[in-house]
Amino acid sequence: MDLLKGLVQTSDIKIVLLVIDGLGGLPLKSRGETELESARRKNLDSLAKRSILGLINPIDYGITPGSGPAHLALFGYDPIEYTISRGALEAAGIDFALQRNDVAARINFATIDKDGVVTDRRAGRITTEKNIELCKKLSSIKIEGVEVFVRPVKEHRAVIVFRKEGLSDRVSDSDPQDVGKPSLEVKALESKPEASRMASLANDFIKEALRTLQDSHPANAILLRGFAAPPSLPAFKDIYKLKSAAIATYPMYKGLARLCGMDILKTGTTIAEEFKTLKKEFKNYDYFYIHIKGTDSAGEDGDFKRKVKVIKEVDKQISRLARLKPMTLAITGDHSTPSLLKAHSWHPVPFLLYSPYCRPDKSCSFTESECVGGGLGQFPSVKVMSLLLAHSLRLKKFGA
Amino acid sequence: MDLLKGLVQTSDIKIVLLVIDGLGGLPLKSRGETELESARRKNLDSLAKRSILGLINPIDYGITPGSGPAHLALFGYDPIEYTISRGALEAAGIDFALQRNDVAARINFATIDKDGVVTDRRAGRITTEKNIELCKKLSSIKIEGVEVFVRPVKEHRAVIVFRKEGLSDRVSDSDPQDVGKPSLEVKALESKPEASRMASLANDFIKEALRTLQDSHPANAILLRGFAAPPSLPAFKDIYKLKSAAIATYPMYKGLARLCGMDILKTGTTIAEEFKTLKKEFKNYDYFYIHIKGTDSAGEDGDFKRKVKVIKEVDKQISRLARLKPMTLAITGDHSTPSLLKAHSWHPVPFLLYSPYCRPDKSCSFTESECVGGGLGQFPSVKVMSLLLAHSLRLKKFGA
Repeated sequence: MDLLKGLVQTSDIKIVLLVIDGLGGLPLKSRGETELESARRKNLDSLAKRSILGLINPIDYGITPGSGPAHLALFGYDPIEYTISRGALEAAGIDFALQRNDVAARINFATIDKDGVVTDRRAGRITTEKNIELCKKLSSIKIEGVEVFVRPVKEHRAVIVFRKEGLSDRVSDSDPQDVGKPSLEVKALESKPEASRMASLANDFIKEALRTLQDSHPANAILLRGFAAPPSLPAFKDIYKLKSAAIATYPMYKGLARLCGMDILKTGTTIAEEFKTLKKEFKNYDYFYIHIKGTDSAGEDGDFKRKVKVIKEVDKQISRLARLKPMTLAITGDHSTPSLLKAHSWHPVPFLLYSPYCRPDKSCSFTESECVGGGLGQFPSVKVMSLLLAHSLRLKKFGA
Repeated sequence: MDLLKGLVQTSDIKIVLLVIDGLGGLPLKSRGETELESARRKNLDSLAKRSILGLINPIDYGITPGSGPAHLALFGYDPIEYTISRGALEAAGIDFALQRNDVAARINFATIDKDGVVTDRRAGRITTEKNIELCKKLSSIKIEGVEVFVRPVKEHRAVIVFRKEGLSDRVSDSDPQDVGKPSLEVKALESKPEASRMASLANDFIKEALRTLQDSHPANAILLRGFAAPPSLPAFKDIYKLKSAAIATYPMYKGLARLCGMDILKTGTTIAEEFKTLKKEFKNYDYFYIHIKGTDSAGEDGDFKRKVKVIKEVDKQISRLARLKPMTLAITGDHSTPSLLKAHSWHPVPFLLYSPYCRPDKSCSFTESECVGGGLGQFPSVKVMSLLLAHSLRLKKFGA
C-alpha cells in the first residue's frame, strides 16, 4: 500500500467495482453447473469477450472469509493486517458514530427453548418493525457504570455499544454459531482487567436481556458476536487520490465503505435502482463500489435457483453500464457462497476486468471454469485495487 | 537470495537470458493481435513446442516498472529492496567509475521556449555528435567547492557526476516529466545539510548550463533526474557462482550488468552481431544476458509495425542458438511496452524457458495468449533466476 501510495496519480478514467456478494458457487452434483454457469448471462458474456478474466483468492488458499476481510481485500487493505470486527462494521452501517472508548458488538435476535438451547439463530428473521420495538425495550436496561446503546439494523440484526473508559474488545462471542447449543458465556481473551471488565458487563447485559425478552418468542434471546473497538483505516482519498462512493442496499456494506472514507449514495432497494444511482452520479466521483446482496443471501439459504435468478437480474442491468465512459470495470464477488454449502466458502471468486487497456484473453463467457483459463490467472483479492488503478492510468512508473 | 546462495553448485550447463526489451504488448483494437502475435515467429514457435511457457510479473500486479527494477528482478534481486536510481545506472553504462562520495544524475538535453517552458524533453533527439560537443561545453562550467563531470551517453542523453565529500542523493528531479511545464527547481528530500547542499549545487549548475546553451537550440536546456550515489549489489559470481557476461548495445543495460558484476562483451550495433558475439564467447562464460533494445524504443514511439519488425529479426537470429549446447535458455522481456500506450506498462510479460530438463507444456507458439495457458503460469520476475539455475542443475537439494 505504501508502494501504491507513492505512485498514485489522477486520471479521467473512472473505476467501477461491482461486487456480487458470494458470487462463486459449486455445482449441486459432480460435473454439473454452478449458479453462475447456469444463469442466463448475455451481457456478462458479451463483456467477457472484451475483458480479461481470472480468479481472486480473498485471503489465502483454503481460508473462508467473512464479509469484512473479503471487502477490505478488494479495497486494497491487507485483510490480515487490517481487521474490523463485526460490531464496528454494523455500527458504521447504521451511522452510529463510535467514540474512542466504545466497544460495539453485533446482536442477533434468536430463539431459545426452555433449556436455553438455541433453536433458531435468526428468530425466524423477525420483521424490522419488531426489531425496532425490541431494541427500544432493551434500551431500558441499566447496567451500573456503563452507558449502553442498543440500535436496530434490519430483520433480526441489531448493534449494541458499550461506552466506558477502560474496556477492551478482546472478548469472546456469546453466539454459539450453531443451533442445538446453548448461548455461550462471554470470556476475556487476554488477561487484562479491561477484558474481564468487558466480559462481565456483556454477561450482565445478556442476563437482563433474557429477562426482558422472555415473552417475545420467537425473539426471546440475543446472541452477541464480533466485539470491536473502532478501527482506523487510511482513507481512499489519501491513499489512492480517489473521490469514492458506495452504492449498497445493506447497512453493513455501507458501514464498511464509510470506514474507508467513501461517500454513501442514496439509492433504492432493487438492483435496477442501484444501477440507476450509478448512472446518475457517474460524473461526480472517480470510484464506485456497487454491492449486490441477493446472491449471498440466496447462497446462505441454500437456494440455488434464487441465486441464479439474482445473477440473471444483474446481467440484465449490466447493459446500463455500456454508455458510461471512460471506465475501468471489475465484476466479481467478495467471496464464494455456494448454495451447496449454505455458507461462505474458501473457493476463489470469478473476476472480470474490462478496460480500454486490458489485454484480452481467449475467454468467451463469465463462468468459474472460463475464469480458470483467464489471462489474469489466480491472484489475491488485495491486488485488485492496483490492477484497477493501473488500467485507469492512475499509477506512475516505479523506478527509472 | 540467501536460500539460493546456500544451494548453488556448479555445472556445465550454460544459461542464456535473452531480454527483448518491452516485449509484451497490446492489440490496437479489441480482440486484435499484439505485436508479438502478429510477428512472423518460425523459430520462436518451433522453440515454444519444446519449451515451457508462462507470464512474468516484473514487480507486482498493476505496477509499471522502470528498466532498472525490471532488470534487477530478472537477475534475481528483489526490486523493492535493491533500488538503483537512473543516474548511477547511466554512469555505469558509460564506464564512468563512480567513487564513494559521488552523486550522479541523468541529463536530458531538452528544448525550452522563451518563458522557460519545456517544449521537447529530448531536444528532437539530437545526434550523439552534437551531444559530445555540448557536453564538452558544459564541462567548462566551474562551480565552487565541487568537482563536476559531464559525459555524453547517446542522442539526447548524458550523465553528470558531482564529486564532493558530504553530498546526499536524496534530492528531487529538475525534469518535469512532461512538456508544457517549466523545468523544476531541485529540492532536498530530507532535512539534512548534505541534501540541501546537493540541491543548491545542482541548481547552480543548471543556471550556468542554461547560459552556456542559450544559442544551442533545440538543445537549449538540460533536465536532471535520478540523482544517485553508487549502489552496492552482491555480485553474480558471489551469489550464483556464475562467470557472467552481458551483450548489449545500449549503455544503460551494460551499466546495469556491470553493477551485478558481469563482464561487458564487445559487440556491434545489430541484433545479428549480438548473437555472433554470444556464439564466439559461448565457451568462456556460464551465464549470458543478451539485451535487445529495438522493441522497447518502437513501443515507446507507438510504432506497432517497427516493433513487429524487430521481433521478426530476433526470430531470424534465434536459429543461431541451435548448436550452442548444453544450454538453458529463457526468452522474455523486462516489462511490457505496448505501442498502444507508447510507454512501459504493468502487463505481465511473455516468458519461454527451454532446457533439456524443462517439462514441456501444450504450447505451440510464443504469444501472450499462449503464455496465459503455459505450464509455468504467472509468476514474479524475481523467480526467473532460480528457475534458470535449477534447469541448469546448478542448485542442490534443500533439506534432507
